[in-house]
Amino acid sequence: MPSTQLTFNDREQHRSWLSNQATLPRGFRVGTHRFAFTPIEAPKPAKMTLTLIALDAPTPDFAAVFTRNAFPGAPIVVGRQRLDEPTLGAIVINNKISNVCAPGGTATAERVCAAAATALNLRSAQILPSSTGVIGWSLPADAMIAALPDAAAALQADSILPAAEGIVTTDLYPKIRSRALGAGRLVGIAKGAGMIEPNLATMLVYILTDIAVPRAELRAMLKRAVDESFNRISIDSDTSTSDTVALVSSGKITDVAPAEFESALHQICRDLAEDVVRNGEGVRHVIRVATTGAPDARLATQIGKAVVNAPLFKCAVAGNDPNVGRLVQAIGRYLGNLPSPIDTSAMRLTIGGIEIFAEGVFKLDPTKEIALTQHLQQAELYVSQPTAEGAFVPPIDFPPHERCVEIGIELGLGNDAAVVIGGDLTHEYVTENADYRS
Amino acid sequence: MPSTQLTFNDREQHRSWLSNQATLPRGFRVGTHRFAFTPIEAPKPAKMTLTLIALDAPTPDFAAVFTRNAFPGAPIVVGRQRLDEPTLGAIVINNKISNVCAPGGTATAERVCAAAATALNLRSAQILPSSTGVIGWSLPADAMIAALPDAAAALQADSILPAAEGIVTTDLYPKIRSRALGAGRLVGIAKGAGMIEPNLATMLVYILTDIAVPRAELRAMLKRAVDESFNRISIDSDTSTSDTVALVSSGKITDVAPAEFESALHQICRDLAEDVVRNGEGVRHVIRVATTGAPDARLATQIGKAVVNAPLFKCAVAGNDPNVGRLVQAIGRYLGNLPSPIDTSAMRLTIGGIEIFAEGVFKLDPTKEIALTQHLQQAELYVSQPTAEGAFVPPIDFPPHERCVEIGIELGLGNDAAVVIGGDLTHEYVTENADYRS
Repeated sequence: MPSTQLTFNDREQHRSWLSNQATLPRGFRVGTHRFAFTPIEAPKPAKMTLTLIALDAPTPDFAAVFTRNAFPGAPIVVGRQRLDEPTLGAIVINNKISNVCAPGGTATAERVCAAAATALNLRSAQILPSSTGVIGWSLPADAMIAALPDAAAALQADSILPAAEGIVTTDLYPKIRSRALGAGRLVGIAKGAGMIEPNLATMLVYILTDIAVPRAELRAMLKRAVDESFNRISIDSDTSTSDTVALVSSGKITDVAPAEFESALHQICRDLAEDVVRNGEGVRHVIRVATTGAPDARLATQIGKAVVNAPLFKCAVAGNDPNVGRLVQAIGRYLGNLPSPIDTSAMRLTIGGIEIFAEGVFKLDPTKEIALTQHLQQAELYVSQPTAEGAFVPPIDFPPHERCVEIGIELGLGNDAAVVIGGDLTHEYVTENADYRS
Repeated sequence: MPSTQLTFNDREQHRSWLSNQATLPRGFRVGTHRFAFTPIEAPKPAKMTLTLIALDAPTPDFAAVFTRNAFPGAPIVVGRQRLDEPTLGAIVINNKISNVCAPGGTATAERVCAAAATALNLRSAQILPSSTGVIGWSLPADAMIAALPDAAAALQADSILPAAEGIVTTDLYPKIRSRALGAGRLVGIAKGAGMIEPNLATMLVYILTDIAVPRAELRAMLKRAVDESFNRISIDSDTSTSDTVALVSSGKITDVAPAEFESALHQICRDLAEDVVRNGEGVRHVIRVATTGAPDARLATQIGKAVVNAPLFKCAVAGNDPNVGRLVQAIGRYLGNLPSPIDTSAMRLTIGGIEIFAEGVFKLDPTKEIALTQHLQQAELYVSQPTAEGAFVPPIDFPPHERCVEIGIELGLGNDAAVVIGGDLTHEYVTENADYRS
């Protein structure tokens, strides 16, 4: 499933690989600016990065999918309206505060768009706003508007890396994936580490291309790619109020076949989705669940989600404990809630390729137990170690490898399949989230 | 909602209160025996307690509800058959191994029933088996059968406390609730601390009464009581493969009105359900979500479940952090997944009675923030403190108080309501579950 099997020894090696991925497609410029401000609701100094992604010329060919959360952020409300606009000229993104259900939030988002339009010589309606961070607080609009000229002054046409770095919150490292196709290229960046179980879209993802694809096709392709990538991951089963995936074409390159473009788009989305999980809050093991033999892809996806969202199984994986009973519990919980039962007599389960369940019963022995433990250990990203104060903080800010805990679920009921990716549940997740705002 | 507002200063005070609750109704005897054995799948010495609950005379008036997990344990398979039997004579319960999908598991359960029947002068089909513990391992039938005469020899008619202690696994303390009614009484015990989001039934719960209620009425009453109690709690959203709630009447007391009995049964179920959450794995705050103004009780229940199962909100509560954004996210995630949207414009949220959201926007200020933090602090059961080795272990084995984090969700859409109870997500939960079996 992943297009790569990368390993990195240290931060520098990883950043150097990211830099090589980061070349911008033709027709785009990126600039960021970081500044200090004081939130209204919790008067304590904070810092925010403003990121601008600008097109050299407004384009009609842009697509976006947004969160399904019933309390979407103001940028989502505005963004949905932007889909009806004839052209897009720029995206303005801030981290730290997500502008969700804050009093006057939509007006504030529009004020920021208007200021960005002035700085970039565009109309407000040509700006897509995005915000991520604390839910409930108000955007510091004045400070953002004051910072916009500096972000515009920083615009450059070489690298998307500043944007990949500018949009992060609790991420440990930036995430970039790219692909050259004919004379053009696609490059995508992702932000997101917690509150990740996307529905229809996810976290903040921006994919830029200079390959010409008409708006309607671009939007259909994005929806299909998101369904098979970001909609099949979960870090903590929480669906963000700000999830956004945007895909923008500058239309400069016209020699790439649509099927080739769509295939590259799918791969970039799958790779970024896995990157998001690997960098997920507290994730020490990436868990990949391949469900096969399903009557339909939806059931296969839901079974995979049931496994990667089961806290007890996630904790067992964190402890390199092959607790197969919790895997069966998780599948059985989901299947037991279906309106009509499905036949489980042909179900076969593997972990790391080792059969652990078939013909309705467990297939376990002490030798398998050792091999299963080793499989979990080889997928561990780092060893958990508390600080002197008892806090659990990841000791690395790069992905050392791309190995996963591989779960196989063969249902024996049909020909559909789905791969779902999630993470374990660790002390690092609790440390990160038990007092995120302070 | 709770019938009590108890506080305990230490283990002795709690045990003394439990002893006072524990008087057995007429017509029942209880005996336990603890013994050592070696599991087949992981050859390391372990200990198991066998618990017998016996009736002086077999009764036709018994009821039980079981887990909906699609991979139920062998005792559940056998237990469902027992519901068709004319009478019940005894319950035989073991902890440590749950006998789920183990090769030959049903035959093993029946062997244990047969041996219990011999010891108690009953027929096998008059014995209800129950098992809880590790999923996937096989029951040590020979060792259990050898231990049965000792459990039978320990039978006594005074107290249910030995059974409440005998059935536990990761529970920190036994759970007993009782109520006197006329000349009779109900007494219930519960086991369960993890893998708790019951569906139709939950964990192991046994409620005994000497009040005469005919079988059909008893079963209908139990279903209604379970729906409003155990089906409205969640510790970790994991549904056990062994959930069982059994209610048995010895029929000795005939002067209690059915409505009075049912009301007491509901209260005992609600109290035991809250006891299970308060003693839940790693729970440091009990979260009570009261959803009102709902168009139906199911929606109210599901919204409550969405809140108590949202990992980010649970972590925030663990850290005494009133992260109201995560509360709105959790509600919005659930509502966003409904097939048709519901009107949220009248939604009003409170924490500890303090309004935090109304008219579509947050109602926050620094003063409220302090009050909200204090509300979370007063509901904390103990302060988290790692051991020298970095493990997080609860420092108490009794419930110091019955205070909750009180969440109010007024939907303004109807007249139905539901109270759902859950816990926070803590380092203590991860420590408990990252290496449960070793």
